[in-house]
Amino acid sequence: MSITLEEVAHHIGAQVCGAAKPALSQTEVQGIASLADANQQQISFLANKTYAGQLADSDALAVIVHPDFQEQVPGVALVVENPYLGFARATQLFDDRPQAKPQIDPTAVIDETAIVGDKVSISANVVIGAHCSIGDGCEIGANTYIGPHSSVGQDAIIAANVTITHNITIGDRVRLHPGAVIGADGFGFAPQAGGWEKIAQLGGVRIGDDCEIGANTCIDRGALNDTVIGNQVIIDNLVQIAHNVVLGDGCALAACSGVAGSTTLGKQCTIGGGAGIAGHLTLADGVHVGAMALISKSINSRGAFASGTAQMPMAEWRRSATRFRQLDDMAKRIQKLEKQLKEG
Amino acid sequence: MSITLEEVAHHIGAQVCGAAKPALSQTEVQGIASLADANQQQISFLANKTYAGQLADSDALAVIVHPDFQEQVPGVALVVENPYLGFARATQLFDDRPQAKPQIDPTAVIDETAIVGDKVSISANVVIGAHCSIGDGCEIGANTYIGPHSSVGQDAIIAANVTITHNITIGDRVRLHPGAVIGADGFGFAPQAGGWEKIAQLGGVRIGDDCEIGANTCIDRGALNDTVIGNQVIIDNLVQIAHNVVLGDGCALAACSGVAGSTTLGKQCTIGGGAGIAGHLTLADGVHVGAMALISKSINSRGAFASGTAQMPMAEWRRSATRFRQLDDMAKRIQKLEKQLKEG
Amino acid sequence: MSITLEEVAHHIGAQVCGAAKPALSQTEVQGIASLADANQQQISFLANKTYAGQLADSDALAVIVHPDFQEQVPGVALVVENPYLGFARATQLFDDRPQAKPQIDPTAVIDETAIVGDKVSISANVVIGAHCSIGDGCEIGANTYIGPHSSVGQDAIIAANVTITHNITIGDRVRLHPGAVIGADGFGFAPQAGGWEKIAQLGGVRIGDDCEIGANTCIDRGALNDTVIGNQVIIDNLVQIAHNVVLGDGCALAACSGVAGSTTLGKQCTIGGGAGIAGHLTLADGVHVGAMALISKSINSRGAFASGTAQMPMAEWRRSATRFRQLDDMAKRIQKLEKQLKEG
Repeated sequence: MSITLEEVAHHIGAQVCGAAKPALSQTEVQGIASLADANQQQISFLANKTYAGQLADSDALAVIVHPDFQEQVPGVALVVENPYLGFARATQLFDDRPQAKPQIDPTAVIDETAIVGDKVSISANVVIGAHCSIGDGCEIGANTYIGPHSSVGQDAIIAANVTITHNITIGDRVRLHPGAVIGADGFGFAPQAGGWEKIAQLGGVRIGDDCEIGANTCIDRGALNDTVIGNQVIIDNLVQIAHNVVLGDGCALAACSGVAGSTTLGKQCTIGGGAGIAGHLTLADGVHVGAMALISKSINSRGAFASGTAQMPMAEWRRSATRFRQLDDMAKRIQKLEKQLKEG
Repeated sequence: MSITLEEVAHHIGAQVCGAAKPALSQTEVQGIASLADANQQQISFLANKTYAGQLADSDALAVIVHPDFQEQVPGVALVVENPYLGFARATQLFDDRPQAKPQIDPTAVIDETAIVGDKVSISANVVIGAHCSIGDGCEIGANTYIGPHSSVGQDAIIAANVTITHNITIGDRVRLHPGAVIGADGFGFAPQAGGWEKIAQLGGVRIGDDCEIGANTCIDRGALNDTVIGNQVIIDNLVQIAHNVVLGDGCALAACSGVAGSTTLGKQCTIGGGAGIAGHLTLADGVHVGAMALISKSINSRGAFASGTAQMPMAEWRRSATRFRQLDDMAKRIQKLEKQLKEG
Repeated sequence: MSITLEEVAHHIGAQVCGAAKPALSQTEVQGIASLADANQQQISFLANKTYAGQLADSDALAVIVHPDFQEQVPGVALVVENPYLGFARATQLFDDRPQAKPQIDPTAVIDETAIVGDKVSISANVVIGAHCSIGDGCEIGANTYIGPHSSVGQDAIIAANVTITHNITIGDRVRLHPGAVIGADGFGFAPQAGGWEKIAQLGGVRIGDDCEIGANTCIDRGALNDTVIGNQVIIDNLVQIAHNVVLGDGCALAACSGVAGSTTLGKQCTIGGGAGIAGHLTLADGVHVGAMALISKSINSRGAFASGTAQMPMAEWRRSATRFRQLDDMAKRIQKLEKQLKEG
């Protein structure tokens, strides 16, 4: 993998500035690193003003910066309006993820009624069921299972050990990380004497384009209708998306969070790690939920929300937690004091 | 799949009422939907009185209702005492989950000492260890592993990519969803200089009949004795059941919850999503734990329990969270004020 | 498996005491159980003084005890300084985990450029990529995938259905439990109009020696540098370790906990079940985080920390939770009362 500075600049749409510009097309870039770590063969970036002081001392071959900082770059400045976005795009040039060959491993078990597109890579021991459709340019990792009547769009990357059950629709350029489970039954049961009667989960799952689904994350199939994931939705590892959830375009859910059944999130919502959203709620566009918060009521307008308490040394926390149980009593005693003083 | 109204009524044990009864045995039902969504070929149900107002306008071919509401159904009423249970049973008629054929895929690797019952379906790349026993009518999904000396009862449905380790006992009609791990080692270690000495986990896991275990859920094997899951226990996705936990019959655990080691839950307990139950506790029958609550003491009688705080806009939450740290001080100041006023 | 009392004593380094010592080399031990459960063919242990009262009535063939309690053992005392450590070591003698045969299953798909050591057991349907290295004495469970350019040290035990992606380094004697995912992409994206631009995750994962990684736990690969797990680190099930986290030697993380990106934990930290550590923090050596606590600020010295509130009956909890929202107001009213009384 040999990448020149010219290729980097072109790929991220940067203007190349700086006192001593080298011959861009002949200058090889060997990777990306932070300002502090970069060596003279690596490029770096300044996405957070806090680190601007590190520009002067960085050994980096070139630095991706906003125009406001280009003068402070001692060497080559790769000037873009959004340096973090420029950094993101630059990383893609240096991705050394093994390139899958467009071939079907002989150990894969593919039903004869499945339709597999062009330039598809199917790894060892993959199992693909009847009437599936796999789009052009897809990669399917080892030991992954795709159930009957499911479809995957073009250029999707499905990792190893993924499970996609039946009647699932996955868009273009979606990435599913290892161990993800798409389309397990939703958790639907009717209580009955001493136990539970299963509600067959008759819906499917529809995932839009350009989504990313983390490792061991679960997206359940719907009860009657489908569970729906919009476009450009990014979901981290170990996340639970229950049946009939609807996630709007551009939502981002951090690891270990969960959304309970039939809840709808608007567009561009962000859910912090470990947060939980109760069932049958509606969250407006642009709602941001803090880490480990519990949301149990609908939210009608954009904004940030939280619950819980902040960290404390254990001994102090015990005292506060004890007082928390007495809060209602404390509030009433304040009222009484106020009354006494007023009357007194 | 052609199902008549007569078959639905018979399957759910409903009395058919209504002004204009069609020829039941010749009326085909094409599915189930909500009152608002159902078309004239679909049936619906009224399980929650809140939606009774939708009865009049529903296009549904027939509606599953309690006797109290049968008069309000414009068309055919399928009258049962428990409409939600009736709905649950009706969904099972329309389940289009692909029917597994009772055959063993040639790519499955089954130890010659394993005993496989009649009409068992074993999918591609399944691996079954020595001395296992698979009951009649079971389905084992693709790429699933079952370790030596484990047994699965009759008519169990084990999904794809499941792991069952050695010496595990699973009852009849149990469903394991994709990625579930039954019988990994419990988390047992003795601290020693600079590290940890592993405690070999010598127990197994016993799962009763009619249980459902969610996707990517983990049930650890016991340290000395077995981890025990009763009958009719339903467990959602991404749940952790630690070593030597005992779950009573009919318990229900929502997604992302966890039960720590050696804790015993009584019968018919329900655990909310993301809730955590500490180790070495005992919960009585019929204890209900709210979403994301932490239970750190045993509970001796039935009832509902919670912990945490409710959602707030982030800015307001910060103020409350700051005051939470001062709660003990606040309580003492109230006491002092009360004393001053009394003495004053 | 026939183990004598002599072998047990030797293995755990115990001094054998007691009134009626049997012929140690001819006394067979059939297992380990608690003091209350042990029969006359089993040994037991006293690790917690609370149970000392059970010594007199225990049927155990022999009991692992601290010198302080050896006199109270009615039969044979296996005397060690650290009885819990002695117990841990003793359990290992009775582990009936099936012994993997040092052979490569014919269904395994191993790239010809991979290097596999001596006495390695590779189970059915394992897939090992190009340029991998598998150390002597390793066991690789069924349906596990190991991506290109990854290495596993000696005597590691990799369970079934594990995923190890590319460029991952795993030390000696590491155990990975079923469904663990090592090296999925970290959750890195730059926001852009309406969506997200992926940041290619260019780092890997390095796991030290003698670590244990639980079932369905995820350890993400780094963004630029590696995610690093020290030696002797134990991680329970369903834990999330985000990109560029660094875990110091001897850390222990309980189930369902999570550590967000670029956070560093010192040595011997313990993280309670369900706890969350925010990103870009540093925790000192010996920090202990309570179950389900959220840590959102760095911690500079050892000690125990918590957040949240304690369990309450639901109705009482609702009152406290309501008052929590009013806490800032309550605090201000106390201040006002104090002022009034002072001035009054």
